[in-house]
Amino acid sequence: MSQKAIEQSVLDSFRKICGDAFVITEGEDKEKYAEDHTETLHFMPQVVLKPRSAEEISSILKICNTHLIPVTPRGAGTGLTGGALPHLGGVVISTERFNTILEIDEKNLQVTTEPGVITQVLMDAVKEKGLFYPPDPASRGSCFIGGNISENSGGPKAVKYGVVKDYVLNLEVVLPSGEIMWTGANVLKNATGYNLTQLIVGSEGTLGIVTKIVLRLLPHPKHDLLMLVPFREVEKACEAVSAIFRAGYTPSGLELMEIDGLKIAVRSLDSTSVQVTEGTAAHLIVEVDGNHMDTLMQEIEAISEVLMQYDCGEIYFADNAAPKEELWKVRRRLPEAVKNDGYSIEEDTVVPRYQLPALIKGVKKLGDEYGFKSVCFGHAGDGNLHIRIKKEGTDNTQDDPEIIKCLRALFALVKELGGTISGEHGIGLVQKRFMDIMFTPSQIDLMKGIKKVFDPNNILNAGKIFD
Amino acid sequence: MSQKAIEQSVLDSFRKICGDAFVITEGEDKEKYAEDHTETLHFMPQVVLKPRSAEEISSILKICNTHLIPVTPRGAGTGLTGGALPHLGGVVISTERFNTILEIDEKNLQVTTEPGVITQVLMDAVKEKGLFYPPDPASRGSCFIGGNISENSGGPKAVKYGVVKDYVLNLEVVLPSGEIMWTGANVLKNATGYNLTQLIVGSEGTLGIVTKIVLRLLPHPKHDLLMLVPFREVEKACEAVSAIFRAGYTPSGLELMEIDGLKIAVRSLDSTSVQVTEGTAAHLIVEVDGNHMDTLMQEIEAISEVLMQYDCGEIYFADNAAPKEELWKVRRRLPEAVKNDGYSIEEDTVVPRYQLPALIKGVKKLGDEYGFKSVCFGHAGDGNLHIRIKKEGTDNTQDDPEIIKCLRALFALVKELGGTISGEHGIGLVQKRFMDIMFTPSQIDLMKGIKKVFDPNNILNAGKIFD
Repeated sequence: MSQKAIEQSVLDSFRKICGDAFVITEGEDKEKYAEDHTETLHFMPQVVLKPRSAEEISSILKICNTHLIPVTPRGAGTGLTGGALPHLGGVVISTERFNTILEIDEKNLQVTTEPGVITQVLMDAVKEKGLFYPPDPASRGSCFIGGNISENSGGPKAVKYGVVKDYVLNLEVVLPSGEIMWTGANVLKNATGYNLTQLIVGSEGTLGIVTKIVLRLLPHPKHDLLMLVPFREVEKACEAVSAIFRAGYTPSGLELMEIDGLKIAVRSLDSTSVQVTEGTAAHLIVEVDGNHMDTLMQEIEAISEVLMQYDCGEIYFADNAAPKEELWKVRRRLPEAVKNDGYSIEEDTVVPRYQLPALIKGVKKLGDEYGFKSVCFGHAGDGNLHIRIKKEGTDNTQDDPEIIKCLRALFALVKELGGTISGEHGIGLVQKRFMDIMFTPSQIDLMKGIKKVFDPNNILNAGKIFD
Repeated sequence: MSQKAIEQSVLDSFRKICGDAFVITEGEDKEKYAEDHTETLHFMPQVVLKPRSAEEISSILKICNTHLIPVTPRGAGTGLTGGALPHLGGVVISTERFNTILEIDEKNLQVTTEPGVITQVLMDAVKEKGLFYPPDPASRGSCFIGGNISENSGGPKAVKYGVVKDYVLNLEVVLPSGEIMWTGANVLKNATGYNLTQLIVGSEGTLGIVTKIVLRLLPHPKHDLLMLVPFREVEKACEAVSAIFRAGYTPSGLELMEIDGLKIAVRSLDSTSVQVTEGTAAHLIVEVDGNHMDTLMQEIEAISEVLMQYDCGEIYFADNAAPKEELWKVRRRLPEAVKNDGYSIEEDTVVPRYQLPALIKGVKKLGDEYGFKSVCFGHAGDGNLHIRIKKEGTDNTQDDPEIIKCLRALFALVKELGGTISGEHGIGLVQKRFMDIMFTPSQIDLMKGIKKVFDPNNILNAGKIFD
């Protein structure tokens, strides 16, 4: 991979393709493309391009493919594993000008959108038509839908509604060769050849650049009910999670917050809506949704009865829009608040749901053993636990050898419990050093082989997921 | 690809691996592996192997890979596109002895099974524990779950619950090299490298042989309600389908049967449960399910009101288990009954749901133009329409040049309507000649590239999906 400076003549070609205003070679505007939401990593690209069409991206990629220039695709830069960072320099292709929702197809319950649309904007636009796009990562107010495709994002609704991969019907992608193609068809079922659509979802911008997205939608549920449930023991809270499903209920949200994390989030928001009672170790947020309020009332009552068998405290019902929004705000703010409190390493572990208590217990034990502090929170209903850690005497980055030791021990535990190292954040730059824990060399070779089919010159987001 | 006879020494090795009783080189027992449920195709393998473990399959594949012997994996042989047919001779590997459900994990709502378990057996076994595995192809009483994985099967429940791909968490596969590997982890969310699991699902046994399957399960819904709705016009029935979703309802089954098909099925079953009234052109079967009977009653009433706006006739409610089962039996029997009536060509088209009326109208128009008769039925809620055709003066096979002309015209229409040529049956042997309608050469090249990564010597189900 060439890391030498991009020639002037190439930059001139880029200007011809995108227009001068959309080729950024210096200044503050370029600076911000050197970072994303992953710790404190900083890699400066040589040039940032802001094309407006698949054809422009195609022309750019043809040039980069010929000159072996590293290309890093970028959405909103809210990723947590460094997937959008130009660690090899070269070109960043920002999709920020692909910001149009092209069609909300109410007849087929589908939406066709460009990748640079903010997820929340998309959700709101379809909701106005009575439709529902469920995957709602915590960063939904700022992340792009295109980034969600690349990382196969989840969010609180995944427990009932699935993740991004469950909504993507068809993608227009530009391959490193410059070829523009659709991966499938705008249909709900497809058994026509290999599933290229599902291969692109979650491939972290290493196989092609997504330029159009067709998503299936659902009718928007008319009602939801929300409750906050304190537990005296974290493990009891986790056991209760599994019990809810075994009792036959599928909540539309089932989140866990350890008390330390909740306290930090409440403090950072100066929120008075969540009362933290003495002796509480963790809370569950439980949401149910549907079209019939009476059914939901029955469900929430039945779920409450399950929870009481796990020694929960007094249940708080968020009984209208304002407290509901406040409670979700606290939950969504939690990761950043905890990060700002020094827990700068965020892990995205996932285990079979019933193994959650074992995972949390194991994390605390490893913390004692390796001397790190941890705050756990996340999508307990999916077994997807975010673990933020910090350790005195280190620089609290994923590059610190002491931190690496802690994380290897943590991931070995996750693997032992039948889980994996990323549920929704991806591997990107910072997790690839742990891939050997999850995969054999043959498995990695298969992935590399697929990469080579799409990108024989290894120009597109090279060195992400694997070396 | 070598098509020469397999050497005696190789057959001896197979006997050593599988045991003499499970190496079939002649006789009636071999005969049945020359066919599946696809028309009248007949290809005799040289040898049928019935191994019992992934290790045995691994040993077999190593030998075949060395000697370049064509290998065709086979489940129950209920496929409709010839995917399990040994058109190159060589070895058939039958998974029929992989017939054990290994673990029903009630704590995590997962099941681990071998591929040779009959789908209905699996569904019943998990139902006994209050759990639900939804994908239920019409052949569920005889097909294997492994074949369902290979074809990414659907069935009536797909409209609410999705298809096979939406339930597969992890697969153990044996690669053509003999390597045994898991594709993922037993977790509900996974953003750890490329999605090898989803790549194997629907790959029709061309990338590896699946030897263990981990599926997620749901709590089994407690109740369902079923109705049969006659329409005077097929197109009105199709329009009603789309209207149900737009009104905010997601039925758990939404099937269409043209009247000719229904009459044939009723006759073949000698059924008295379904009354066919004069002037009816098609029926919809509508099912709703859930945990609260009162909610379901409200839903079925609201859906009925939607349907009445589309000029439906008197609605028949199947009000207990026996008539429900009878109605589904008629629906499931329909394809075979229609086939036995001479409509031997079955197509598996899928379009965006709202395009169904245009598709049916177009099919009838093409029938007039090209001189074929058609019966349409299938999963209207998904836009997945099965079309069975016959044409006087042809031999009614997919190899007849006149039939090919009809089908090319049909698929061109499907493509024009934004659809694709297979929703759940796969491409296999008989549909690959139409792949050029759906895909550009570059798209096919990507698929071929992926195939080569998994199977560099092209021994595994070669010549399926593409040449």
